[in-house]
Amino acid sequence: MTDDTSDRRSAEVIEDESMVRDEPSARLAAYRRSIDNFDAALIHILAERFRTTKAVGEYKATHELPPADPAREEKQIARLRALASESGLDPEFSEKFLRFVIDEVIHHHERIREAGSRGQ
Amino acid sequence: MTDDTSDRRSAEVIEDESMVRDEPSARLAAYRRSIDNFDAALIHILAERFRTTKAVGEYKATHELPPADPAREEKQIARLRALASESGLDPEFSEKFLRFVIDEVIHHHERIREAGSRGQ
Repeated sequence: MTDDTSDRRSAEVIEDESMVRDEPSARLAAYRRSIDNFDAALIHILAERFRTTKAVGEYKATHELPPADPAREEKQIARLRALASESGLDPEFSEKFLRFVIDEVIHHHERIREAGSRGQ
Repeated sequence: MTDDTSDRRSAEVIEDESMVRDEPSARLAAYRRSIDNFDAALIHILAERFRTTKAVGEYKATHELPPADPAREEKQIARLRALASESGLDPEFSEKFLRFVIDEVIHHHERIREAGSRGQ
């Protein structure tokens, strides 16, 4: 690692890095603009998903169906893990994500049911 | 609550419910098809978000920037809470959701950084 070739290579690397260092905020800012757009899309889809699960919750409360449905959840998890694998997302994370969302939904369903009981 | 009017109203409600009971699986199935479509969209956007944060992680590791950026996170949370309010999503949930995603991202960044240290 002390011959001329590696010394030249080190100098090149340092030069490249200093070039990159001149525009770090521009590159990071571009990534962050993309992330902000993805987050806005995620929030709006989640809003619509919760509007739909709210309708499901009201429907379940009216028909005295339990808030949770383990058989349905197992199917959803298997499907999302497959979609995650296809799209390069960690399947473990996709499962954690769905459980995180479903926990919130079940919490909402319980509140709808309790509000219904109090209303009667 | 025992006059004729309320008795008639109760009978009407029961009739409406029995009509709905005839097609519960159809209505629930329709809601679930929507939920499945929203979930597929969420998974694909999350996959693309993590592709972008992976690039951020590699960039941060190269430039010796810390994996977490609390000032950036505060801005993201404030923005997503506002977007959530506008779209009818619980702002508390939007914040919990972003923290859930960011925790995973920081975990990825740490792994990228560790892999980089081992490689040197």
